[in-house]
Amino acid sequence: MTQHSHQTAPTQFVDARGIRFAYRRFGKSDGVPLVFNMHFTGTMDHWDPLVTDGLAATREVILFDNAGISSSSGEVPTTFEEMGANAIAFIEALGLKQVDVLGFSIGGFVAQEIVLQATELVLRLVLVGTGPRGGQSMATLTPEAQRIFGATYEVPEELWLKVHFTDSEASQAAGREFLKRFLRRAENRDPEVNEKVAPAQLEAIGKWGVPREGSYDYLKTIRQPTLVINGDNDVIIYSINSWILQQNIPDAQLILYPDANHGSLYQYPGRFVRHVSMFLSE
Amino acid sequence: MTQHSHQTAPTQFVDARGIRFAYRRFGKSDGVPLVFNMHFTGTMDHWDPLVTDGLAATREVILFDNAGISSSSGEVPTTFEEMGANAIAFIEALGLKQVDVLGFSIGGFVAQEIVLQATELVLRLVLVGTGPRGGQSMATLTPEAQRIFGATYEVPEELWLKVHFTDSEASQAAGREFLKRFLRRAENRDPEVNEKVAPAQLEAIGKWGVPREGSYDYLKTIRQPTLVINGDNDVIIYSINSWILQQNIPDAQLILYPDANHGSLYQYPGRFVRHVSMFLSE
Repeated sequence: MTQHSHQTAPTQFVDARGIRFAYRRFGKSDGVPLVFNMHFTGTMDHWDPLVTDGLAATREVILFDNAGISSSSGEVPTTFEEMGANAIAFIEALGLKQVDVLGFSIGGFVAQEIVLQATELVLRLVLVGTGPRGGQSMATLTPEAQRIFGATYEVPEELWLKVHFTDSEASQAAGREFLKRFLRRAENRDPEVNEKVAPAQLEAIGKWGVPREGSYDYLKTIRQPTLVINGDNDVIIYSINSWILQQNIPDAQLILYPDANHGSLYQYPGRFVRHVSMFLSE
Repeated sequence: MTQHSHQTAPTQFVDARGIRFAYRRFGKSDGVPLVFNMHFTGTMDHWDPLVTDGLAATREVILFDNAGISSSSGEVPTTFEEMGANAIAFIEALGLKQVDVLGFSIGGFVAQEIVLQATELVLRLVLVGTGPRGGQSMATLTPEAQRIFGATYEVPEELWLKVHFTDSEASQAAGREFLKRFLRRAENRDPEVNEKVAPAQLEAIGKWGVPREGSYDYLKTIRQPTLVINGDNDVIIYSINSWILQQNIPDAQLILYPDANHGSLYQYPGRFVRHVSMFLSE
């Protein structure tokens, strides 16, 4: 058991594949660690401390910046295959033989690639607010995502109120609480990503999202117990894509939360931690 | 705390609306009791002891036969509105002011009617393997249900292997374990239903299932926190109807289990008890 938490865990570094990966580890140090994969343009400091510390109560959690993101060196690749290969190199550089993997949004695409490329490395898989290759309305940003990411905000962080929460009063109130939490870490905060990140990630999204004949067949090869979680009204990666993941991954459970958009894990952090902890302990 | 369990709880009786209702109560007696509503042609002895005793560890559970079923007197009405009214009369005859309600399959239709007709009586709602009025392929039995209920079985109980479980080896093995459990109560077992039950319930199903313009509007009036659970491959009431319930009930969570048919709660009793207990305790 380390004494560190989301707020105090030092940023450490490990080299692999010519990249210097920034990461943080904290929580209960026995058992299988849980590796978090972040969303579009996000850094280690975009995770919700209630989620990371909540899960760290019963297992070790590992946050990291993939290649080209924030405190890590290198370039963001323009395919999720390459991002997955980088993530695998990072995990193996830590000397880990088996991990649980959580991916949120495009981090869920990376998580799927980790499983596909290094299946023996992954014990359990948690996919949050994400979708399959060639899923519905995934080849480009959805109209809602284009509008939300295209707008300007007086307070830049308020972008995330629109990305992660619905327009309901209750959801927006939960969003404002989340913003306070995710801004709370002041020392050694991960810098925001540079201007090359979004174009590279968007190019990768475009390739991942193109529907093809048999787009979902690869999901049937995922043998890991999988938990798919989303809001019931995700306008960034439509919720139906979570249904499609569940229907095609052989051992997948689906959980949807009410009145919730892309950031269901930030709207219901307590419920999310209980569901994920239960799943990882089964 | 009573010392009774699923196997030992005596069948008791209470009179309301001219009906003598048979019921059993057991479990931890403080807090809000959970009232179970049974599936097509089922009795109190069709529940899985792992589910009822599992939930009884943290709350009181109440099983009952609705009017015309097994040990209860009266006739099975040919509408779910009337079955709901009978269920409400039963609950009120026990002197209860507030209950949690669980409904499985057509018991889920009754559970919805209880909420619609006596909303102040219900704190939380659990809907398992069920669907909305006018849901998809609900006006008649599905082709799969017609084939399953129309077939003959050497051992009559093996009908339930087909109704509740998928054809996979793992699911059928879980089904055979369930059959052992649900047949274990030998003393004071509820008699099987008489020959008038199925036709009356089928007539009611026909009326409930007819799609109409705005079929799902009534779901938006359900204010109770609701948990919708199903197998991912329910061929009796298609799983998409669980999605529809979640998308229309304002405060509903959805949980789907893998490789599971209509009887997901009997295939994964431990997981089901944990999810429902967590939900009822939120």
